[in-house]
Amino acid sequence: MSNQKINRFILTENEMPTAWYNVRADMPEQHDPLLDPASGKPATVDMLSGIFARELAEQELTTKRYIDIPGPVLDYYKKYRPSPVIRAYDLERALDTPAKIYFKYEGNNTSGSHKLNSAVAQAYYNKIEGINHITTETGAGQWGTALAMACAYFDIDLTVFMVKISAMQKPYRKAVMETYGAKVHPSPSDTTKVGRGMLAKSPDDGGSLGTAISEAVELSVSTENCRYCLGSVLNQVVLHQSIIGEEAYLQMQKAGDYPDYVIGCAGGGSNLGGLVASFMRDKLTGKANPVCIAVEPAACPSMTRGRYAYDFCDVGHVTPLAKMYTTGSAFKPASIHAGGLRFHGMSPILSKLYHDGYLAARSVFQKDVFDAAVLFARTEAILPAPESAHAIRTAIDIALECKESGEAKTILFGLTGNGSFDLTAYMSYLDGEMVNFAPSDEDIEQSLSRLPDMSVYEK
Amino acid sequence: MSNQKINRFILTENEMPTAWYNVRADMPEQHDPLLDPASGKPATVDMLSGIFARELAEQELTTKRYIDIPGPVLDYYKKYRPSPVIRAYDLERALDTPAKIYFKYEGNNTSGSHKLNSAVAQAYYNKIEGINHITTETGAGQWGTALAMACAYFDIDLTVFMVKISAMQKPYRKAVMETYGAKVHPSPSDTTKVGRGMLAKSPDDGGSLGTAISEAVELSVSTENCRYCLGSVLNQVVLHQSIIGEEAYLQMQKAGDYPDYVIGCAGGGSNLGGLVASFMRDKLTGKANPVCIAVEPAACPSMTRGRYAYDFCDVGHVTPLAKMYTTGSAFKPASIHAGGLRFHGMSPILSKLYHDGYLAARSVFQKDVFDAAVLFARTEAILPAPESAHAIRTAIDIALECKESGEAKTILFGLTGNGSFDLTAYMSYLDGEMVNFAPSDEDIEQSLSRLPDMSVYEK
Repeated sequence: MSNQKINRFILTENEMPTAWYNVRADMPEQHDPLLDPASGKPATVDMLSGIFARELAEQELTTKRYIDIPGPVLDYYKKYRPSPVIRAYDLERALDTPAKIYFKYEGNNTSGSHKLNSAVAQAYYNKIEGINHITTETGAGQWGTALAMACAYFDIDLTVFMVKISAMQKPYRKAVMETYGAKVHPSPSDTTKVGRGMLAKSPDDGGSLGTAISEAVELSVSTENCRYCLGSVLNQVVLHQSIIGEEAYLQMQKAGDYPDYVIGCAGGGSNLGGLVASFMRDKLTGKANPVCIAVEPAACPSMTRGRYAYDFCDVGHVTPLAKMYTTGSAFKPASIHAGGLRFHGMSPILSKLYHDGYLAARSVFQKDVFDAAVLFARTEAILPAPESAHAIRTAIDIALECKESGEAKTILFGLTGNGSFDLTAYMSYLDGEMVNFAPSDEDIEQSLSRLPDMSVYEK
Repeated sequence: MSNQKINRFILTENEMPTAWYNVRADMPEQHDPLLDPASGKPATVDMLSGIFARELAEQELTTKRYIDIPGPVLDYYKKYRPSPVIRAYDLERALDTPAKIYFKYEGNNTSGSHKLNSAVAQAYYNKIEGINHITTETGAGQWGTALAMACAYFDIDLTVFMVKISAMQKPYRKAVMETYGAKVHPSPSDTTKVGRGMLAKSPDDGGSLGTAISEAVELSVSTENCRYCLGSVLNQVVLHQSIIGEEAYLQMQKAGDYPDYVIGCAGGGSNLGGLVASFMRDKLTGKANPVCIAVEPAACPSMTRGRYAYDFCDVGHVTPLAKMYTTGSAFKPASIHAGGLRFHGMSPILSKLYHDGYLAARSVFQKDVFDAAVLFARTEAILPAPESAHAIRTAIDIALECKESGEAKTILFGLTGNGSFDLTAYMSYLDGEMVNFAPSDEDIEQSLSRLPDMSVYEK
């Protein structure tokens, strides 16, 4: 416990990156384009502008390498960024591993996670285009909170569809969104056609991100001067989240270290895409060869057990079609406590990187995740969000592999959020009531059998 | 919204102060000593060692100017410190004030507040003296969480008596303490003589810090190898919390500014004492003359409406007698949402500074506090704890006075914690259900009439 070693690698504001990095610029092949489900034709900026603010529609399609972060977005970032990279000395000691474990911590803001990075950007671009109402969905509530904060700051109305099971598990998440002025509907809700349809079929439906997305898109396209925002999956989100990787890259330099492993949890891919981007740049340009790992819940294994195919991002099939790893938009993930990872698909960028062998993937079980979360909380003094704890689990697994092999590998993982709104989950774990979930092969096959029929577009 | 200006003034780990500053060293007069209620004689280290770890008993009585922070405590501090000083540009703009508003933010850790600064120190000193069980009380739950984290880290058993009204308002606070391995009893509880007595008299009693302290002390003195820890009021706590002021002092230098006003909320005085210490040093030594302000709730006005007298720190009268501003240990503060400020007394150090004219005090009403909290949340992107929002209220009031007078004063306030566990309070505010409380003169007089009769010690 010497005082000479450095625990937290920080950046001053002046050292903070001022541009987002677009990993697409360095990918040898691009992912297949988003398709308009009506025509089967590749989505254009004009088409996407009906859903998103125009600048965001352009970011969705661009392969430009760097995009300057607008001044007002940078100013907001500076309210809570740069975020620290922290060396987990006490966790290393508890594991008795020769591995060096670093984590990039995004939980030090009121939204509780990295989601704020894209929320501020999206709200800003909507604001300057005169949009005065935004709709969105939220799972665990982190994205909804982040967007509520951003919309309050830029004075935009916000309607949030919150996955019902999460709204029940996390009542205070709704309250914090309302404190920031948002209107919150548990989803499925009776305020949209899609929601009413779901409720008619199954009144006790706990909801899913896929359904909530449908409801939010439906409201946005039927409301004047209103646009939709999404907290994950999209290229624009991966772009905005690159601030995580760009900072972490500089911080690892300050640490005088380079990660052999870069690990992030993956629901739709927003945090993972942002964290790995800067290290993937090295990998794609041949400068270094870190192992980048997506960690998903065994209950929702898009990459590890899904198919690489065109699918809808939502249950109601109102979004464009994306080529991605998916368990099918009809897939109903079990009610695990990591609500933010209960999504059937995966970012097209990350899906392509995984498909082409640049990205690895693992899945982990809920109880193992909470074992890791509690060990981390007690050694490193941060209570992690269940989503983030998926990355902790895999970081610990690799550190234990290092203990076996005697290798002093360097591990960097993304700690995307804090668990202050997840105490119901921790209580369930402490009470011994938590169970593991994984879909059967039949469950997945059945859902995949309902993937959209792409042959209809070939005529 | 230029990008040239600095928003967050940070310190590197190497710039972090390595000693606590003891403001007593520079006070022209010391406060009257703690008294043993049995004999009326000044408390000694030997006597206090029956309650506290010996090193902490010594810190309670020392007037030494600087005390080195032990290595393991510093190491733990570096998991979440140095904390930032942030310039509230957007709040200033919203108020249209010429004043410059800075705040020292202590909410970026899992306990959610500054309380961790003393919890780690107290757990450490107990640990090295071989104590394996600690008891404490908690109001809002911040102190209990902090001590649970520290005890988990140093592998010490912990029993927490949590003010019942707070336990009801904040169920997840109990859960987070339990996640860190603590045993939590809502107070008054049926596990102690004091608690059972209270329950017999009034079964629906919502509890108070004073009662919870009695229960915790009772358990500690009746349990082998067990000591009591307190999160506020004590000199040792003010000492440990000086890390806040010592950092803020350096950060204001980095900002090229010096505060005309230093403002903190005051329950028992832990955060305020820590924040103002370093500026009080300038004031006591004639180097500068900042106005230091304690802000207390109108519902619990120890300084602004209490008496400077010897009193017990607890309801059950098991603690030493302290000379302090008090509304009387029989005073029952209304159930405001700032549970951490519902204490009848005040740190003897701060009481003496107030009595001698070095410290000012104001009281504010609950609804005005939440008006300030929501404005702050929306402009500065941090949801404040209700306790901390008392300081925000007064900072805003002074900034508005500056708007009237046209003076560009510099304000520094302590943002002691985040409001992630206070959403019940925010919902009450948003629903228009929040009411203001202030005791009547008769309430206070009646309670003060039951102050201990010090004449019994004169014979």
